[in-house]
Amino acid sequence: MSKLLDNINSPEDLKKLNIDELQELCQEIREFLVEKVSKNGGHLSSNLGIVELSVALQYVFDSPKDKIIYDVGHQSYVNKILTGRKEQFDNLRKLDGLSGFPKPYESEHDQFITGHSSTSIAQAIGIATANKLKGDPNYTIAVIGDGSLTGGLAFEALNNTKPGLNLIVILNDNQMSIAPSVGSLSNYLNKIRSANVYSSSKRGLKNILPKIPLIGKPLYKIIDKIKKGLRFLFLPKSVLFEQFGYNYIGPIDGNDIKSLEEILERSKNVYRPVLIHVITQKGKGYEPAETNPNKFHGVGPFKIETGETSPSKPSYSKKLGEILVDRAAKNDKILAITAAMPDGTGLSSFKATYPDRFFDVGIAEEFAVTFASGLAKEGYIPVFACYSTFLQRAYDQIVHDVALQNLHVIFAIDRAGVVGQDGETHQGLLDISFLSSIPNLTILAPKDGEEFEAMMDLAISLDGPVAIRYPRGFYSYKITRNKLLKVVKGKSEVLITGNDVTIVAYGKMVKTALDVAQLLRRKKIFAEVINARFIKPFDESNILKSITKTKNVFTIEDGYTSGGLASKVQKLVANKAIYSSYYFGYPDEFIKQGETTQIEKKYKLDKYSIANKISETYYKNTNKQTKKDKNKNTTA
Amino acid sequence: MSKLLDNINSPEDLKKLNIDELQELCQEIREFLVEKVSKNGGHLSSNLGIVELSVALQYVFDSPKDKIIYDVGHQSYVNKILTGRKEQFDNLRKLDGLSGFPKPYESEHDQFITGHSSTSIAQAIGIATANKLKGDPNYTIAVIGDGSLTGGLAFEALNNTKPGLNLIVILNDNQMSIAPSVGSLSNYLNKIRSANVYSSSKRGLKNILPKIPLIGKPLYKIIDKIKKGLRFLFLPKSVLFEQFGYNYIGPIDGNDIKSLEEILERSKNVYRPVLIHVITQKGKGYEPAETNPNKFHGVGPFKIETGETSPSKPSYSKKLGEILVDRAAKNDKILAITAAMPDGTGLSSFKATYPDRFFDVGIAEEFAVTFASGLAKEGYIPVFACYSTFLQRAYDQIVHDVALQNLHVIFAIDRAGVVGQDGETHQGLLDISFLSSIPNLTILAPKDGEEFEAMMDLAISLDGPVAIRYPRGFYSYKITRNKLLKVVKGKSEVLITGNDVTIVAYGKMVKTALDVAQLLRRKKIFAEVINARFIKPFDESNILKSITKTKNVFTIEDGYTSGGLASKVQKLVANKAIYSSYYFGYPDEFIKQGETTQIEKKYKLDKYSIANKISETYYKNTNKQTKKDKNKNTTA
Repeated sequence: MSKLLDNINSPEDLKKLNIDELQELCQEIREFLVEKVSKNGGHLSSNLGIVELSVALQYVFDSPKDKIIYDVGHQSYVNKILTGRKEQFDNLRKLDGLSGFPKPYESEHDQFITGHSSTSIAQAIGIATANKLKGDPNYTIAVIGDGSLTGGLAFEALNNTKPGLNLIVILNDNQMSIAPSVGSLSNYLNKIRSANVYSSSKRGLKNILPKIPLIGKPLYKIIDKIKKGLRFLFLPKSVLFEQFGYNYIGPIDGNDIKSLEEILERSKNVYRPVLIHVITQKGKGYEPAETNPNKFHGVGPFKIETGETSPSKPSYSKKLGEILVDRAAKNDKILAITAAMPDGTGLSSFKATYPDRFFDVGIAEEFAVTFASGLAKEGYIPVFACYSTFLQRAYDQIVHDVALQNLHVIFAIDRAGVVGQDGETHQGLLDISFLSSIPNLTILAPKDGEEFEAMMDLAISLDGPVAIRYPRGFYSYKITRNKLLKVVKGKSEVLITGNDVTIVAYGKMVKTALDVAQLLRRKKIFAEVINARFIKPFDESNILKSITKTKNVFTIEDGYTSGGLASKVQKLVANKAIYSSYYFGYPDEFIKQGETTQIEKKYKLDKYSIANKISETYYKNTNKQTKKDKNKNTTA
Repeated sequence: MSKLLDNINSPEDLKKLNIDELQELCQEIREFLVEKVSKNGGHLSSNLGIVELSVALQYVFDSPKDKIIYDVGHQSYVNKILTGRKEQFDNLRKLDGLSGFPKPYESEHDQFITGHSSTSIAQAIGIATANKLKGDPNYTIAVIGDGSLTGGLAFEALNNTKPGLNLIVILNDNQMSIAPSVGSLSNYLNKIRSANVYSSSKRGLKNILPKIPLIGKPLYKIIDKIKKGLRFLFLPKSVLFEQFGYNYIGPIDGNDIKSLEEILERSKNVYRPVLIHVITQKGKGYEPAETNPNKFHGVGPFKIETGETSPSKPSYSKKLGEILVDRAAKNDKILAITAAMPDGTGLSSFKATYPDRFFDVGIAEEFAVTFASGLAKEGYIPVFACYSTFLQRAYDQIVHDVALQNLHVIFAIDRAGVVGQDGETHQGLLDISFLSSIPNLTILAPKDGEEFEAMMDLAISLDGPVAIRYPRGFYSYKITRNKLLKVVKGKSEVLITGNDVTIVAYGKMVKTALDVAQLLRRKKIFAEVINARFIKPFDESNILKSITKTKNVFTIEDGYTSGGLASKVQKLVANKAIYSSYYFGYPDEFIKQGETTQIEKKYKLDKYSIANKISETYYKNTNKQTKKDKNKNTTA
């Protein structure tokens, strides 16, 4: 079938092809991408859009000496295909398989692990500066989308661009982040785009450009001539990027391999930072993705013929949208904010129902939080729905602009805990640890959809900042047959009473705790299962009461134990002499991709591993000890 | 003496004055500022520069209905003077006294607690958006320096500015953050500045502007006419700010009260976001501060006549500069980075010695960290020196761009712990808590200058990211007579051996621990004092050994106990049955200003409070218990 692609196992193989063959190869790569992603799921639209650009970059530049950095990194599939990893695509995003993001441990052609947005220009400036210090003439290339350009870090990097760096920024402008891009910058790019896009198929570059002088002629002459030559391409000249010290070239048709090859080749001779503005189409070449790039941004398995995916099941994200739409009808103070993820966070329905009360701020989590502080100051109740891993980007804004002011902002933290296939850049394992030392903050986690609803109502009724964290994926509306106990600030709930061991959990791990209790019952160990509900304020008195009774305590959490629930319970236990304890959660390492259940098994967070560990610990201690020892050692 | 100022107790009083009197008042305020700050210390240069602007804003606008937000907030002294707080200036920056930063709990004229940079436009957009939703016609004014504009959050806010907001951004352009501003944006403003600055004293505004039509005429006509009229002032028209949807007005002489009054008054009638570019001089009116605005940015008490301050004593900041200058001579991989604080972080000497290896990135902590990741990727050893409270702004960059890649970046964390007079926005109390749950990171804290030197050497020799945190202010080179024990990764050091209680501390609190041990000896309690040295990796085995011996453990730390050293030791104690424990540190609240020693006393972190608590706890437990109980209860 794919004759050309079969022989591409490294960039060297690529360089043997001519331009017409490259064009054919791009077509083969598109078919490969659609076939593989349709089976395993993954990021499709952005990769289809960037096929020609990825090919042209490896064709023109000399990677890994020249360093190519893909911002966000989900659009690096094509680069992986070209750099000897195409055979691994059957294990894409699977446990111990090929990652969906750049990974230096996979290939020397990947420079950084990237998964968060807007980092590439700063990283590239770092490398280019190092090259300058070393006298290394190689190029550093940052490939950044127009969506990523809205993040403050990208701007800080533009503002810190120095002359004399061998730096090429490729602005991959597809008018989208995941959702369509927003903000003034996006409007600005639109204006540029509306001018003619350069494409070699329309008019030959050779006729426009003067001949590039041979190497050896005085450098200033070369630069001068090239600059004058390239000036033809600078229409309309982008004042904005020129202000930041870039030689702006564009816009270029980024799905035209010939134009790209020509422009990239010539950009090598511009001896100052260059920004090449490339227009690509998300989903290019696969009709369902062209029509609906948002749906195929990150997608599960689908039917190639129709683009059909499995219908979406109930999730916390969707539930959030439903709750907010409903509560906003009764309370006109409720507003919703997203940072470029109206669909992922479940806010699309809110957006449709209350367009004036919905704010998509682009990939700008810091702004989202500080903007929310202003809204809250005036009596509104902004709900910022954000993935756990991306909320990290607004840590200081949460501390300084919201918590310090004790303003009523609600953080709806989606994708908390292990997220599965996206791997270590996307795990939401740090939120409890970084949030729970912030004064004034209330932190909760629901065990199911019903409790989520009650917690959102409580959050709306409270004063001050509130964070509610919940995991990715499907959920049950109700995990117990019990009538829902009223959610009261700072109070835990006992779901099962027992005298032998205490198990404390929050959020999705409450279900695990209940399952574990069932397994333990078979071994005649009777567990008291406590749903902590609040990480902060933490229900010290009730949990301590249970610990004092059972003298064996175990915590189960979907996050790092360091600074997590473990720490909160250790604090209690440290002040009491008890029989035994163990704290389940994630150890101190970055956690790679895999199915959530696989990851939980690997880290012994599945119910069987937990039940075994608890019974083992329990028996070891109860055999060794007699009940009369109990709790003599009281402390400060 | 100061006749006019005597009668100014609120903005209403101000509005009774005419323009000539305002001018006189500004002079009186300058004298007041110099006198008060010369006694207590404080932020002088920025406040002297902003006298006319602060007066004009309260004169023209109707605060607190119109909301004025001062970015960073250290330049809000004049606003405090004008809003009924001038009598409190004798207690400026003192415990329970007037804060040096805006505080809504002090006055309704302060909107937010601000102390970190680049937040004001986002906050103002939040308020203006809320006003729009409510149909409230009042103005929101953000006063932001050109230095603060280099922070990514400010850019995100510019990019998210929407038409139809009653928003006025005052760009207070003094060509400085604390040090001179850097970056392309700064160059860009320079270009604008080099054109004529508008000043009413040079040519009358009335002659340029057409008469403002009476209210009542059709709105579009008014807007149109005003816009045409104001166009005269838009020279040179700032393309950059216009791209972000602002009506740019400027540059204006910001130390000319008449021009300011006229322009501000007229800006009210522009029905879209306005950016007024105001040129001010830092230190204006006080010659030593005009000559050396950097020195008088934040200054201790000084002689008014000469500007003379006490000579600076040894500090960790200064020591950092010395160490780096010395080590960089031997190791050409060492680079240094600051975010707009070359002096405060002690890097001025490095900058002077190795200009090519020094990088001031402006107020852009995120960029600083991600840029460092690029440098480290190429084998350099970048040292990013940053205040603890500002490092919070780069949390995700530390996690995602450095720690996840396991790159060798050194974070020299200055002003860790309580910083004293600057209060709650500047306390460095969160660093241990937010850093210690990040995988791959090594975290240390030196007890004195000698150990700092050894730790820096270790940090340089290690692989992967390293954070060294140290406090503000004076330090001793050596706090014990012992020969320095070699610093080995993950190993604590026992400074005093003892059998009764274990005291674990890090950094500056090691000195407190030694003092406490001395006090306890008088009570016949013999303490083992352990300098943890490493927060991460934490020396669990040696510390546990000591705890197992004494069965009484106490930790002392200069940070929040939640997620701090307390948590690390509680983890150990929770797994062992011991007699007693107590964890000294800061409780879960934001900590306001005061002398560091006063704050420590207030929170019972001074040696006497600690010694009392320890002896009390110790006696209570040793009396209650008999030695035979010891440590039967082993655990998982």
